[in-house]
Amino acid sequence: MSGLDLGSIIDWTGLFGIAVFAVSGSLEAARKEMDILGFLLIGCVTGLGGGTLRDLLLGATPVYWIERPEMVMICLVASVATYFLAPLLTSRYRALVWMDAIGLSTFCITGTAIAMAHGASPLIAVCMGVMSATFGGIIRDVLCAESLILSSRELYVTTAVAGATAYLLLQLVNVGEMIATLGAFSIAFGLRTAAILFGLKLPQYRRPAG
Amino acid sequence: MSGLDLGSIIDWTGLFGIAVFAVSGSLEAARKEMDILGFLLIGCVTGLGGGTLRDLLLGATPVYWIERPEMVMICLVASVATYFLAPLLTSRYRALVWMDAIGLSTFCITGTAIAMAHGASPLIAVCMGVMSATFGGIIRDVLCAESLILSSRELYVTTAVAGATAYLLLQLVNVGEMIATLGAFSIAFGLRTAAILFGLKLPQYRRPAG
Amino acid sequence: MSGLDLGSIIDWTGLFGIAVFAVSGSLEAARKEMDILGFLLIGCVTGLGGGTLRDLLLGATPVYWIERPEMVMICLVASVATYFLAPLLTSRYRALVWMDAIGLSTFCITGTAIAMAHGASPLIAVCMGVMSATFGGIIRDVLCAESLILSSRELYVTTAVAGATAYLLLQLVNVGEMIATLGAFSIAFGLRTAAILFGLKLPQYRRPAG
Repeated sequence: MSGLDLGSIIDWTGLFGIAVFAVSGSLEAARKEMDILGFLLIGCVTGLGGGTLRDLLLGATPVYWIERPEMVMICLVASVATYFLAPLLTSRYRALVWMDAIGLSTFCITGTAIAMAHGASPLIAVCMGVMSATFGGIIRDVLCAESLILSSRELYVTTAVAGATAYLLLQLVNVGEMIATLGAFSIAFGLRTAAILFGLKLPQYRRPAG
Repeated sequence: MSGLDLGSIIDWTGLFGIAVFAVSGSLEAARKEMDILGFLLIGCVTGLGGGTLRDLLLGATPVYWIERPEMVMICLVASVATYFLAPLLTSRYRALVWMDAIGLSTFCITGTAIAMAHGASPLIAVCMGVMSATFGGIIRDVLCAESLILSSRELYVTTAVAGATAYLLLQLVNVGEMIATLGAFSIAFGLRTAAILFGLKLPQYRRPAG
Repeated sequence: MSGLDLGSIIDWTGLFGIAVFAVSGSLEAARKEMDILGFLLIGCVTGLGGGTLRDLLLGATPVYWIERPEMVMICLVASVATYFLAPLLTSRYRALVWMDAIGLSTFCITGTAIAMAHGASPLIAVCMGVMSATFGGIIRDVLCAESLILSSRELYVTTAVAGATAYLLLQLVNVGEMIATLGAFSIAFGLRTAAILFGLKLPQYRRPAG
């Protein structure tokens, strides 16, 4: 963290992303009809997984939530709340998709910012952003034996790459932390929204015969 | 490790848990009819996986078994022994369930103890205990493409949470390492036994229509 | 890295293995008809996964590709090339099997060499070689929801163990880095080739009735 301003915006953005991803994990646990501890476990893993992988790869251990138990607490609270409130939703699947979209758009920014703060080169910073954003959802889907987001959902990785790259470029032109964060979030979330609403996709590789 | 007594009890408990989990991994390899090297690989991953994740997250690297190759040796011996002795068992599935229960009850204690020795807060120590106890089984099930313990088995995560919490509380009231370990093991193993024998479960989340 | 000669051979071997594994990952993405970003992601994960796990376990963080972005670049280039060239292949599955075989034979050597350079004992060095060689392929198969190489392919883990052990023994008898590398590669690749061509397998464990 290089300064108060950057630190605190990233921090709040990060907390928000964690909570949202924890909810998305819990919604998946609801779809699989797990018990309350299944909700807590999947909620924590989804909320904290991306940032944990980032910290491990950067060598920033102990990983961030070990010295900040409130991060774990947020996931636990979000998971319990989902357990009781999910029945009120008319479509848990739709809620999951949107929660996932918000988390994705948030984490590609915080992951990139933290990697830059560790002195990573631009290519690596973008990679870290993409991994932070996608790994929580990947591990959620592996644990819930769901078909992976990688092969099925619209512009998923693309969104993370776009958000991370936008944040990096906005930082390079020095527009300030707040604008860089909001700008990159808008681009990522807008892209994902368009993809979900209009079924946008990159062309799939088509297997020729043989 | 803060002292000889604590260190040696945790150590022996840990070695025992590793061997038992290695056997549970090999029994799964037997069910999948793998070859001997499949037994060795799944045995090692199941036996060492939970503690490896704990060490990575705590930043206690190189992870514990790198400087103690005898840990790996235990897994190899346990896996080879299972390869030759498994045919003598009348039910390999039942053996797997009980081996897994013993490993689970052991690792939730050692994981919590080691996290406390690293100065982790109570919430984090319990999380570490739960992860150490469940991760070996989770990775075993992912590698063997088995349906995950998370969604199918009785009071699985609950057992780990109960054992880790009991150990923490017994330590706080200063009953001594031996009693804390035995007490927590009894609670965890008793709970899991009851769950297996009587089919106890926490209420599952029920999806409302829609 | 203990010297220029060792360092540079290992380095080039490693770069070659990374590229080959990235291609194997991309070929799997082609079989799953992913989009271009799916190719890039699976290519990077497969190419860099084994070495990343090795570095994490050894505590050699930040992991190797963070300070050497050209490693990531190789994977990206290999993945894009595969995206455009794969349609020209008459059998993408056969290409995948052979790329995987070359990567496997390469990484069991570099993994062992790097672990030895970190002062690991012989048993641990062989384990690291085996993990470096197999983890990329395992994570590729998990992400692509492919049935795991562990349970289906011929002499897969055996090849990695043989290559790692051969390299270790050749180093112990001091034949020089070049001969140790070529010798171990020949043994591993020869074994895997024979296994693929002639369907060689270790005897599978057979479940008795009951």
